[in-house]
Formats: sequence, C-alpha cells, structure tokens
Amino acid sequence: MKINAIGETLQEEFMALIVQKYGGTSVGTIERIESVAAKIKKYQDEGNQLVVAVSAMSGETNRLIALAEQISERPDRREMDVLVSTGEQVTIALLCMALHKIGCKARSYTGGQVRILTDSAHSKARIQSIDGEKIREDLQNNRVVVVAGFQGVDEEGNITTLGRGGSDTTAVALATALKAEECQIFTDVDGVYTTDPRIEPRARRLDRITFEEMLELASLGSKVLQIRAVEFAGKYNVPLRVLSSFEEGQGTLITTEEEGMEEAKISGIAFNKDEAKLTIRGVPDQPGVAYKILGPISDANIEIDMIVQNVGSDDTTDFTFTVHRSEYAKALEILRGIAGELEAREVKGDDSIVKISLVGVGMRSHAGIASTMFAALAKEAINIQMISTSEIKVSVVVDEKYLELGVRCLHQAFQLDADPVSV
Amino acid sequence: MKINAIGETLQEEFMALIVQKYGGTSVGTIERIESVAAKIKKYQDEGNQLVVAVSAMSGETNRLIALAEQISERPDRREMDVLVSTGEQVTIALLCMALHKIGCKARSYTGGQVRILTDSAHSKARIQSIDGEKIREDLQNNRVVVVAGFQGVDEEGNITTLGRGGSDTTAVALATALKAEECQIFTDVDGVYTTDPRIEPRARRLDRITFEEMLELASLGSKVLQIRAVEFAGKYNVPLRVLSSFEEGQGTLITTEEEGMEEAKISGIAFNKDEAKLTIRGVPDQPGVAYKILGPISDANIEIDMIVQNVGSDDTTDFTFTVHRSEYAKALEILRGIAGELEAREVKGDDSIVKISLVGVGMRSHAGIASTMFAALAKEAINIQMISTSEIKVSVVVDEKYLELGVRCLHQAFQLDADPVSV
Repeated sequence: MKINAIGETLQEEFMALIVQKYGGTSVGTIERIESVAAKIKKYQDEGNQLVVAVSAMSGETNRLIALAEQISERPDRREMDVLVSTGEQVTIALLCMALHKIGCKARSYTGGQVRILTDSAHSKARIQSIDGEKIREDLQNNRVVVVAGFQGVDEEGNITTLGRGGSDTTAVALATALKAEECQIFTDVDGVYTTDPRIEPRARRLDRITFEEMLELASLGSKVLQIRAVEFAGKYNVPLRVLSSFEEGQGTLITTEEEGMEEAKISGIAFNKDEAKLTIRGVPDQPGVAYKILGPISDANIEIDMIVQNVGSDDTTDFTFTVHRSEYAKALEILRGIAGELEAREVKGDDSIVKISLVGVGMRSHAGIASTMFAALAKEAINIQMISTSEIKVSVVVDEKYLELGVRCLHQAFQLDADPVSV
Repeated sequence: MKINAIGETLQEEFMALIVQKYGGTSVGTIERIESVAAKIKKYQDEGNQLVVAVSAMSGETNRLIALAEQISERPDRREMDVLVSTGEQVTIALLCMALHKIGCKARSYTGGQVRILTDSAHSKARIQSIDGEKIREDLQNNRVVVVAGFQGVDEEGNITTLGRGGSDTTAVALATALKAEECQIFTDVDGVYTTDPRIEPRARRLDRITFEEMLELASLGSKVLQIRAVEFAGKYNVPLRVLSSFEEGQGTLITTEEEGMEEAKISGIAFNKDEAKLTIRGVPDQPGVAYKILGPISDANIEIDMIVQNVGSDDTTDFTFTVHRSEYAKALEILRGIAGELEAREVKGDDSIVKISLVGVGMRSHAGIASTMFAALAKEAINIQMISTSEIKVSVVVDEKYLELGVRCLHQAFQLDADPVSV
C-alpha cells in the first residue's frame, strides 16, 4: 500500500508495459535522439515498463542504398539486408547511450539478438515469432529495452528486413508478443487527420479510429502508418496510438470498434494522386473477357487498383481500371496490344486523375452517405468518372484539377471540421 | 590429370585455402572495394579457396565514434560495440555485391553469424573459438566467404569488438580455425621494411621475417600489423604475409625460423618517439625498493617500458625507466611524491628522447652485434643514455635529435640496404 502526498491510500501501482516506436525523423540527429531519451524517461518515471523500437536516423538508409547502387543496380537482396540493417543498429546504440546519460538503465538488441524470427524473403520478410525472454528479464531489472526496427533473422541466421516502414511492424509485433498495454507510434505528425491538412486547413485530428478505417486511410494516401503494422495490430487487437515526437498531445488511438464510436460515421477523406485510368471499350460481353484484359496486365507485374465494368449498349462491355501512374505507359501499351484480338472499339487512357475516398465504419449502418457525397460534388460541378464502393468507403475518380475543391467540399458536407456528429 | 599450355602433364590441382584481410584504406571507397573484388577473383581463378576478413571503410569507425561522443564522453562499452561493429557490416555487404557483379559467388557473415565466439570484454574482447562449419560449406560451393573483421559475440549473444586493428586478429583466427595455407594481410604498405623509409630512404623490404622479429618491430613502432595478430599467428604457426592492396608484389612472409634464414642476423631497426625517461637517483639499495618506486606508477595505470637499475657509488642505487610521453607529467609528479619517503637524492625527467632498437634472431648465435651498434653510434658522437637488451633485440635511448642520424648509421653499419649477409 502507498500513501500519496495528500494522505490518500493508493492502490498498488500498476506497471503498464508500453511499446513505443520512433521513426527516422524522430531520431534524425543526436539532439533528437536525446529528446527521445528524455521522453522515454518521462514515461518510465510515470511507472511504465518500456520497450522501444527505432528506425535508422533519417537519411541513413538512403545513404546506404546509394553506396550499394554505386556497385550494382540490382544488388543481391541478402547482402542488401546485411547493409541496410546497420542503420537501425546505429540508432539503438546511440539511444541507449542517451538513456544512460540521463540515468535510465537501457539495453539494445538487434533483430537477430531479440530474436525476431522471420521468413527468408529478403527485403520484405514477414515476422514469424519473437522471443520475449531476454526482454522480460531486462524489464524486470528496470531496464528500457531498445530494439532495432525493420529487421530480423531467418531460421538460418541470415539477416532479413521487413521492407520500408517495417519498424512500425516491429513495434506492433513486439507489443503483441509481450501483450503490451498499448503500442505507441511516434512520428512527425500528431495523429491521424480527417484529411490532409495541406489540402484542407480545417482538417481535424481524430481522437479515435478503427483499424479498418485506418487501413483505408493509410492505403489511400494518408501515409502515417505502415499498412502491415495496422493489419497486424488489428489482427491481434493491439491498441495502436499515433502521436508526435515533437509536440505534446494524445494523438490518435487506433482500436477496435466500440460503443460511442457509432456517432462518427465518416472518419476522413483520403486521396491518391498517383493513379492513372485506362479504358477499353466495346469488347464482347462474354465469360473470360475480364481475364483476357486484366491477365496480361497482372502478368507484367502491374498492380491494378479500382476496376469498373459497365455493360454497353449492344452485346459489348466497357472496362475501366486504374494503375499506378508510373506504370501507365506500360499498361496502355499492353492494352493496345490486346485490343485487336479482343476486337475492342477503343482504348483510352488518362493520367491526370485523382481518386478521392470517403472512409468511415458508420457507413455500414447509415444510408445516404453516398448520395450526400455525390450531391456535394455535383454542387461544385465536379464530374465523377468512376465510382467504387466497399463496406466502409466510397471512392470516386475525378479530374486531378478538382483534388482540392473535391476534398474541401466533402470535408464540409460531412462537417469533419466539427466534433463528430451524426449525418 | 591436366595438361598445361606447353603440353606438360600437371599434377591434380591443389586447392589452397587462403585467408585474406583488407584494411580500412583498402576498402575506403566503392572503387577500392571493386578493385579488392577483382583481386580476390584473381586468386580464386588461380584455383584457391578464399575467406576474406575486412575492416570498416576508412573514416567510418571514426564517424561512428564521433556520433557517440556527441552524447557521452564515456559511452557504455556494450553499446559502443553495437555501434562501431556496423562499420564492418557495411563493408562485407558491399564487397559481396562487388564480387557478385564480376561473377564471383560470395556470401557475407558478421562476427555473430560465423560465429566468432569471444569473451565479454567489450571493446577489447579475445576470440575463444570460431565455428567453421558454414564457411566450409560455402567454400565447397565455390563461394568466397566474406567475414566482418574486428567483431564477435560472447556466450550471451552480445556483440563484442576486438579493439582497433582487430581485423588482423580476425583473419589470423580464421586462418587458424580453417587450417589455411596462408593468411595474407593486405594493407597500404607493400611489406615489412628494415626500417621506416621516411627516415632512411634506403630501407629495404624484407622477403621473410620471423614472428618474434615481427613482434619486436611492430611493438617498437613499425605499425604494419596488430601485435596480437602476430602473436596469434606465431602461437598457431600460421604463415602470415603482409602485402600491398595497391601494388603487385610478394610482400613480406612472417613465419617460423627456418634454415637459410640464419644468414640474416639483423632484420631491421625500429624506433619509438613516444616515450619519455624518468630517473630517481640515490635511493637506498635494499630489497623492495623497486616495488616502492614502480608500484605507485603501475597503480596509476601508467605502463612502463624500459627499466634500468644501476648500482651507485655508496649504498644507494639509481633507477631509470621510460613511459609513454603522454603520461610523463603524471609519472614525474608521482615520482616526486615518493622521493621524500625514499630519501632519494634527485628526481629527473626527460621527454625529448627516442628509443632505437636493433632487431634480429641472428643475435642469438652471433656475438659482436651490440659492439658494432655502439661503435656505429659512437662514430657519429651519439651519446647513449640507456641500454636494454633481449634475446633478439638491443635498444638504446638517445636524445631525440639523433633519431634520423642514429637510424641511418645503424642501417648502414649492418648493411641493411643490401641483400642479407653475415656480419
């Protein structure tokens, strides 16, 4: 039993285990590493146990890649992982030194030391298990445990990396393995916003959001968290919090759907400026035609995002789909190549489009979201070129010149700048 | 059976296993790494199996240390090892990429991956064992094996380093564990010289030298190889060759004493400009006095090199010893502190001295070496302040202004510029 300053009896202190992740910008200089250390100490002083995953200092991974590229355009991926994994190793050592300096006990671990076991897919490995034994021992000895993000080892002891942004995944995997109270992702933004504040200055930080909404927002362009980390957290139900390394604040908590969240139907508006649209018109409307069109595109390793098929006036049909803008020319060439065989009437493309998406779990139980969206766009005379819907989002493709106008009019139509209300 | 170009029958090719080590200057840029790769390929094409230990790219270790020093003057040594060991890890990856590029199969290993097991003395760990299994498997698959020098892991899996220059030790330890034919240390000089060519331009590269001679030359100032590596090689009788990364040539072979080496009595002349001399005069000549004088010096962690004791005229004795010049002031202060208690007549010091040493196994069986040395110095009117001898060396301390003159006159007196002859 403890007695506090004003004489009240307090419960035995509850030691919460928190996993934190600090990205490259947050540890980009020695000064910043020292301020991260101070932040960690504060959390520890508040009675928490801390496991910290870190990225390479910003710029470091690119520096290492540039060295490799001086030798080879396509360096061996096993050796590439050996090379780039040094970036995080530098950070863990420096952060521990900074923690020691302010009187925090701390110990660093590389991915191989923890050990974070992955498959052998170099440069995009997936975590299979984490041995939490050493970490638990350190925590019991009141040490902060600092783990290199982004990396692991395979069964053979080869160094692997999880791919860019993999430090988020490391943090979530650590939180899962250690059954942490919360996984906190410190980054250079102070949370997840209703939309990009550079487009709509009235964008508002969300206090809470569901894993599913976050997935839609992340994959659609609000690049706050790595998608795999969010999937991972959702799968194992690890509360995930995004918050700023540089400012105070509660950030955004990403969690499962709960009561009281019902109110907010729309969480945010995402957009993607990196797509291009391709259309093939007047192909025979018969089984297998979709495969004949999209098969060659996939075979060329081009990823397809939206697909829309309209039945045409005669026995033909029209296909429209979007690809990443960098693969537009290649996709167009492929499509033209197969147009003759398919007796298509026309092949067209447009690489000056933008996709705008409305995201929110509230759509599930509330009708009228799509119509409100279309009305708002119509009022601004924004022509909709494609529509695609899922359970928690509605996406439209419009001319890219309407990006700002479209985002802002939707933001206003759904009153996203105000505190969440029903629509 | 093989037939060579002019029709002679050759013996079945003998696959020699060679361990090579390339230092920081040799791998200091991407270009140099590529030329090291070309060199390795040449050796492999000649029918050798190759295991290569590498250092960090020159400047890299200092860059990492500077980062740590921005945080703390005395960073934790475990974390320091985590930090600096990344330097070699970068090199092994880049060298493998460069080997792949020219069609050489190659695989990299960190110290922990090999595994090079050391004790836990961070920053100055000693190698205890090397697991050669993975390496042998790779060699059988015709791969060049590239190992990070300077580093290992302890029983607990903590990263350790062997201290500066430890990559030489790594190479020798690998050669020992794998029973290599030869351990080749590639560096920025083309071998071991009779003395420093910057002092005596007529200095000559030695074709062969014994481990013991090399130890004396290395510790006395010819900083070509790390002392521990030479000791290690001598202990396990691994032929060690020093040669240039940048020029062709046979370098210098360091090996055990053999027939035919008898001829060369003197191998070289070493010198050390970093010492200072201290003298305490007129202390009672009784048991324990040496300890009373040198004990406090050792207790202050000051290393003592030469020690000379002369019996004085009365029942007193004089002590003279040398320490590193950077510790001269501290040593002098200690000596003055104990002079009173010892009733010493006088305490004196001189930090403008130089030690010149004649090294050679031939001294063992040939008299007159020392007298030739003293005669040569006397002829140039160089006053000898201290003399110390061992089985294979004679060292003298003289005024530092005589460094060049002393080295050159001895070089000439023993005809070191000519091919080895008897004296």
